[in-house]
Amino acid sequence: MGEFDLISRYFHRPAQRSPLGVGDDCALLAPAAGHHLAVSSDMLVEGRHFLSTVAPERLGHKALAVNLSDLAACGAKPLAFTLALSLPAADEAWLAGFARGMWALADAHGCELVGGDTTNGPLNICITVFGEVPAGQALLRSGARPGDDLWVSGTLGDARLALEAFRGTLQLPAQAFAAARLRMETPTPRVPLGQALRGCATSAIDISDGLLGDLGHVLAASGVGATIDTARTLPLLAAGTGVCDDAWALTCVLAGGDDYELAFTAPPALRPEVEAAGRASGTAVTRIGRIEAEPGLRLLGANGAPLAQRFAGFDHFG
Amino acid sequence: MGEFDLISRYFHRPAQRSPLGVGDDCALLAPAAGHHLAVSSDMLVEGRHFLSTVAPERLGHKALAVNLSDLAACGAKPLAFTLALSLPAADEAWLAGFARGMWALADAHGCELVGGDTTNGPLNICITVFGEVPAGQALLRSGARPGDDLWVSGTLGDARLALEAFRGTLQLPAQAFAAARLRMETPTPRVPLGQALRGCATSAIDISDGLLGDLGHVLAASGVGATIDTARTLPLLAAGTGVCDDAWALTCVLAGGDDYELAFTAPPALRPEVEAAGRASGTAVTRIGRIEAEPGLRLLGANGAPLAQRFAGFDHFG
Repeated sequence: MGEFDLISRYFHRPAQRSPLGVGDDCALLAPAAGHHLAVSSDMLVEGRHFLSTVAPERLGHKALAVNLSDLAACGAKPLAFTLALSLPAADEAWLAGFARGMWALADAHGCELVGGDTTNGPLNICITVFGEVPAGQALLRSGARPGDDLWVSGTLGDARLALEAFRGTLQLPAQAFAAARLRMETPTPRVPLGQALRGCATSAIDISDGLLGDLGHVLAASGVGATIDTARTLPLLAAGTGVCDDAWALTCVLAGGDDYELAFTAPPALRPEVEAAGRASGTAVTRIGRIEAEPGLRLLGANGAPLAQRFAGFDHFG
Repeated sequence: MGEFDLISRYFHRPAQRSPLGVGDDCALLAPAAGHHLAVSSDMLVEGRHFLSTVAPERLGHKALAVNLSDLAACGAKPLAFTLALSLPAADEAWLAGFARGMWALADAHGCELVGGDTTNGPLNICITVFGEVPAGQALLRSGARPGDDLWVSGTLGDARLALEAFRGTLQLPAQAFAAARLRMETPTPRVPLGQALRGCATSAIDISDGLLGDLGHVLAASGVGATIDTARTLPLLAAGTGVCDDAWALTCVLAGGDDYELAFTAPPALRPEVEAAGRASGTAVTRIGRIEAEPGLRLLGANGAPLAQRFAGFDHFG
């Protein structure tokens, strides 16, 4: 199977909404009048962003999901994406599975594949995603203000829990492992929540490298600090804190990585609006702390006293 | 050096024209009113798209150049790009060289880096480039009509000549090798020509996999055929046909790959306009054949008789 056969068999569908899709030198996009185009690129490398044991269908889902999560974090509506794929071989079963997982998620979000590249080399998946957001309404990292509530969506830490089980650091019951693995391999980008938070959240970020590390970017960009009540975050581990000791559970929740939930801030006066956005988008939202003028990130333990445990963020070159 | 240090040191400049650049979950782009956004992605893999011997500065140039070439082929004006980079190590000398080559070309085209991704893994460079083109004026592959002239820009075949010298297939004089190598490693994207051809060319494509193969895409998309007068293409080898036998020279020119010139079509009545576009953009343009209703690609030799030599196109999975 040659490069062009491969593209036409697995990655070519006529464009529905874009003026021009796959098959020319460029694709053409037309964001609606009064809207900006939101753009994000993520590259996934085997062994670094996914294990070689992952089913290709789940990998196709995840490669697009982590990009959609960036659109969610800025409140954009998905429009289109490009896919650049470096493959060691043109393995038809792998390609069919990968494409199936990718298309299912793309279709669920009305996001169409408009172009890309296919080449031979070590397995590497680079997706660039495009969304539209009304000019001036994008959710940025820089908008958090002292007094704002700090919120997170969904559950946190299960992807890290699965990774530690794969590594053999932790032993999990079979059912808990399967559920945690599903969270790691098929994250849910919070696209509807992101859009529902426009005009309500003051800042947002998607949690890909662990809550503390990603929240650190918001604090730096906004010039503020925060306090997190860890008693509110501990229950966010979907597997339940019974599957490991509390220190490990907190590590997974606060510094886990690969969550693809949103962390966001909003004034306390808008709590009803935040809760309505969660309900409207079918996404749990939990208030876990507060933004403060004093720089730095403070963690409170179960008794309200400062937490002694320390956490390291994730760094791709650390 | 961590991931965020690396980005801030080499790949972070404030956005000048885009509403939001590097540093948030998404970048924001705002194409001018009445314009479409042209998008293209190219992924470069070591050993496949560049040799490990290439200087990082030239590689930084080439990685962006091959993407700008796609914008040129659709007549778009460059706006911005994202860079996703997988690196085996954070080598500062390599990064400084790569960034220098990339920024020099980006600045020459007023194209700003707005986002991307950096990770650890086998060397892989994925750039997605954005340009703007007035709605309805993009140069497409599908517009060639019987009777149109067939044109190419610049010179063809020197990149392949350099590759064959690296492979040891051909021996070149030192000066010819250096010049051919420069063409291979630092191609010139024909961005000004592409924009000058709007409203004049009926179709265009950039020549990345060899003239015959890429022209084949135009013929297929347009439902036409073509005849090429190879006596007009043979002199396009900048190194001169004296450096190898004519059969090799023709292979390099017609099926070389890595040229990043434009092949385009235009009605004979617009020859003065095509030549004016070439002059205005400082780019040589050469008429090499004609589009015909009869499908297929016919090659004429020096005497006007059909050429016996056969050529294989380049396929990344061939």
